[in-house]
Parts: sequence; C-alpha cells; structure tokens
Amino acid sequence: MRIHIQNPPDDPAFTVTPDMWDEAAARAGAGGHRVSFADTADGFAAAIGGAEMLVGDKDVLRPLLPAPAPALRAVFVTNAGVDNLAPFDWLPPGAVLLNNRGTHAAKAGEFGIMAILMLASAIPAMVTDQRDGIWRKRWGHSVAGRRLTILGLGTLGGAVATHAARLGMRVTGLRARPAPHPDCAAVLGADRIDEVLPETDALLLACPLTPATRGVLDRRRIGRLGRAAGVVNIGRGALLDQEALCDALDAGLLSGAVLDVFEPEPLPAGHRIWRTRNLIVSPHTAADDPATYLPRSLDIVFENLRALAAGAPPPNRVDPARGY
Amino acid sequence: MRIHIQNPPDDPAFTVTPDMWDEAAARAGAGGHRVSFADTADGFAAAIGGAEMLVGDKDVLRPLLPAPAPALRAVFVTNAGVDNLAPFDWLPPGAVLLNNRGTHAAKAGEFGIMAILMLASAIPAMVTDQRDGIWRKRWGHSVAGRRLTILGLGTLGGAVATHAARLGMRVTGLRARPAPHPDCAAVLGADRIDEVLPETDALLLACPLTPATRGVLDRRRIGRLGRAAGVVNIGRGALLDQEALCDALDAGLLSGAVLDVFEPEPLPAGHRIWRTRNLIVSPHTAADDPATYLPRSLDIVFENLRALAAGAPPPNRVDPARGY
Repeated sequence: MRIHIQNPPDDPAFTVTPDMWDEAAARAGAGGHRVSFADTADGFAAAIGGAEMLVGDKDVLRPLLPAPAPALRAVFVTNAGVDNLAPFDWLPPGAVLLNNRGTHAAKAGEFGIMAILMLASAIPAMVTDQRDGIWRKRWGHSVAGRRLTILGLGTLGGAVATHAARLGMRVTGLRARPAPHPDCAAVLGADRIDEVLPETDALLLACPLTPATRGVLDRRRIGRLGRAAGVVNIGRGALLDQEALCDALDAGLLSGAVLDVFEPEPLPAGHRIWRTRNLIVSPHTAADDPATYLPRSLDIVFENLRALAAGAPPPNRVDPARGY
Repeated sequence: MRIHIQNPPDDPAFTVTPDMWDEAAARAGAGGHRVSFADTADGFAAAIGGAEMLVGDKDVLRPLLPAPAPALRAVFVTNAGVDNLAPFDWLPPGAVLLNNRGTHAAKAGEFGIMAILMLASAIPAMVTDQRDGIWRKRWGHSVAGRRLTILGLGTLGGAVATHAARLGMRVTGLRARPAPHPDCAAVLGADRIDEVLPETDALLLACPLTPATRGVLDRRRIGRLGRAAGVVNIGRGALLDQEALCDALDAGLLSGAVLDVFEPEPLPAGHRIWRTRNLIVSPHTAADDPATYLPRSLDIVFENLRALAAGAPPPNRVDPARGY
C-alpha cells in the first residue's frame, strides 16, 4: 500500500522517521509498503494524490484536509480522541477514519491510578496549603475498599480499572453500552450516573467527547457527589462544567480534583482554574509517553494495515455517527 | 496482663476506646487482660505503678517517662520511628520497647508508589508551573522498566517495592543487612549507595533515622543522581541534606521531589522548602490512615502480648543499640 506520513513541522519527539517505520515493519513482519514522509504543506500536496493511507496527528492533518486524494482508503490519526475533527465531512468518500486507541493504555492507566491515590492522600489540598505556606495535617486513607466510578471503559478507563482493582478498590464502570468487565464489580449504562454519584469516593472521567457526553458532569451532578469525593478528568475538558467544579472546590466541597484536560486548551493565563483550591492542573500530558508513543502507534498502524489487506474491519475504525 | 493505654489529650482520631480494645481482643481471641485508659498526667500517674504493659504515642509518652513502674515489662509506642525517644535510658530495667512497625504498610505503600508515579508524570514540576500560571507541556513516562532504588526495606520500603514490581519497575533495595527480597531485582548493603545512585530513576528513602543514616543523602550523593532522577522521602527529614536538595531543584537538576518528612517539623513558616521548585510538601501524613490505624495497631499489640505470654521474643521489639 502507498502510505503517507505527515509529521509535525517542529516536534522531533513526535516525528516518525524512516528508521522507526522500518523497525515497526520488521516487528509486524510486513514489508512491501511504499512510504513517504513530509513535514510541510508542500510535501503533503506532493504525496497525497497517490496515497492510500494517510498517517498523522489530528492537529497536523486538520488544516490540510480535505485534499484531492482519490486513492485514499484510510486516515490514521495518531490521537485517541477525534472530537475536534467532527463532523467528518472532510473524509474522502470510501475512506475510513482510524484512531490511535490502545496506544495510551500504559501511561494513562498509571496517571489515572496516580491521580486516584493523590485524592486519597489529599495531595491537591496539600498543594494548596503549600502554596499558602501552611503546615496542616490532612489525614488520607488507603484506597482498598473505596468506591471508584469510571465513566468510559475504553483503553483509558479500562487500564485504570485494572490498577484500581489490584489495589482492592470497588470499581463501577459506566458506559454507553454496558458489558461485564473483569476489573469492575458492576458495569452500568451511562444513563444511570445519577444513582452512582452519591456512592462514589473517586470519579474518573475517561470517555470520548461526543454530543452525548458534552457537559455530562454538570452542576447538578457535581452536587450529587459526596463532600469527600474527588474528581479526575483524563477525557476532555468539556465533559464537565468547569465553573461548577471550581465553585464546589472553592466552597470546600469535594476532596479535590486532578485535571489533565480543559476547555479551552491551552488554559489561558489568568483563568480561574489556575488558582482554584484543591485542584491540580496537568497540561494534557497524562496519556503520552514519548519514549514508547510512536513505536506503539506504528504497531497499531500495522494491525490496521493487516486488516485492510485482508478485507476485514480495521480494529481502530471510528464510527462517524458515534464519534469514537 | 495489666495494660495501661495513655491516649492523647485532644485527638479523638487517635484515641483508643474501650470498645476498640474489646473488638481487637475478640479478633485476637484473647481475653483476661485488665486494661486502664487515661488521657491526663494524673490518670497516667494513677495507673503506671501497677502496669505491666504501657501503650501510647511516643509524643504523648515522652514527657511522662521515666516513671516509677516496677511491674512494667513492655512499652508499646504506636509509632514506627522511635528516633526521638533515643537514647533509651528512660526505659525501666527489664522492660522491652516495642514499636508499631507493620501498621503503616498499606497507606505508606500506596503513598510511596503514588509519589513515584508523580515523579514519572512530572507532577512536582507541573504544580510549580501551576503556581506560576504557566501552561507548559512536560512529557512523562510509564514507570515500567524504570529503576527504583529503595533505601530501607522494612515495612514501608517493602510495601513500596511490592507495588513497584507489579508495575514492572526494576527495584534495587539498600539495607544495613542485605537479604534477598521477592520484589527486588537486587538487595545490596547500604554502604553501596554510591554505586547505585547514578543508575537510579527514582530514589525512595524509607529507612529509620539512626546515627548511621542521618544525612545519608548528603550534597555529594545528591550530585551523583542523574538530572532526570527524582527523590521521595517517607523516612525522616534528617536523612537528607535539605539545603542541598533545594539547591539542586532550584538549579533545575533532578525531575522533582515528594517529601513527607522534614527537619524540623512542623516546617516553619517562611522556610525555603515551601517555595522550592519541583518539590511537593506532604505534612508527615504519608503512612497514617485514621480509618484503620488504631484497629491495626491493637492487632499488633495482641500479637506481641501473645509472644510475651509464651516467653517468645515479641516481634516488634526495638533493639536499643540499632535504634529500630
């Protein structure tokens, strides 16, 4: 297949090199693909006309699409969330959109359980005390036996569930289409969130941003959480009402929040979130590990190439109607 | 046996009640002990003359000892570290000192692995950026395959080693008397620390404070750590040279530090540590979980009572010569 890889113009840590590609091809035992690389608009224009698969970061590809690409069968974006590519009308007819789900499991899983342990040890409040220069004992607790609710049981949520179950947490999963999960005591439909929130010690948002999930943790639902509950968001900023969350934290409700995603990003200078009490800001880096990101992404590209060659449904296909 | 429990005068979260004692006795299947409770100096004076075992927090007991206690066979302090009770000349002749090692495993183990994950995700640096109101991507990494060095493989260090090994870290233990540990790839004598520091991604201090360990992480050894290495201290503040650590962090060396213990405590207002970059302050709460602390402590008291009754060495005996 003819594959074009569009790299970012200025980000060596996220640039696919020919050597990286060859190593991934060797791991996959797959040769014979013709691959082009570019990091400029001119390079893209020269390659896209003949490309059957296009690979690149969504923020790199978005300004370049739509483009005349009569041979294109698949677009692989090296991101998991594709919300800001919707609607998908730029996708050439007959081409499938593939995302990078699966790549982020290891790092995001570790970040998620770290954030839950930080809430259990009151780290967000301690960081606020530190900012104020105040020594104040805040007793934490072991997470064993505590109740974790995870909204979204995909790659990210599933990886966190596994870590949490190992530490003895009681995990409830919420998802659009519930199905049993080995690390969850229960998996319920996402529409049952109101029942679960009052029984939650830690709430993890790990679902894609779609019209159905936008603002899912609204002011009313934040009010259903217990006073000692904590919130982690590794999905997308717009899943929650940021103002309502800041109001609750500034009022001393909730035990804290660890947020990796915001609306908008970058979080503007002077934004209220920077100074909200008992809240920790991570700059949308939870799921990425440059040391393993590109090799793992290319392994997933090859899994999907194999499926396409066999006429099978590629495992990372995004359903434009669902948005993930 | 006649047991006297001296509670703190003003800390309900750490007060042993008669009900708690009875529940622990039931768990242990041990009846027949005569128990007194007090939270004042007068109550102590009335009970100590006949007590065969004394139980209490070291900061509660210290001002009350030595005391005329001719029947005393054992003093159980509800703390793990007994460094500030040394020298142990206040201990009545013939009485053994017992500490509370074992109680802190669950909470301290979770705190330790949390802190190591925080270093891997650059949380201390992100918190500094947040204080400055700056959005700056800092890429972290999964801890799998990374090298953790733990100084002290007792209850705390051992619990962290178990979590770290589960996450695929390569753990090297350092201890005074090395012996194989199931969760460590290697256990070396503490005198080999200089060899290990340059090969360390994360360094955890989890040993008791003794004349041999005071200042063990001095300025020279901090200089042997790699630029991307991080430091966690859940032992005692005086294990490390705080000024040297702050100098390194302020110079942009090391990836960060998560400290639960300080010299002195409480950390004084205006102390440099409050504002040092890439450093997180936890107010000596890492190992304590009020929800489980007292029941677990009493279970350990009963284990030691059983040994004393059988004429066996009590498992929590402190060796005054070693200091732990």
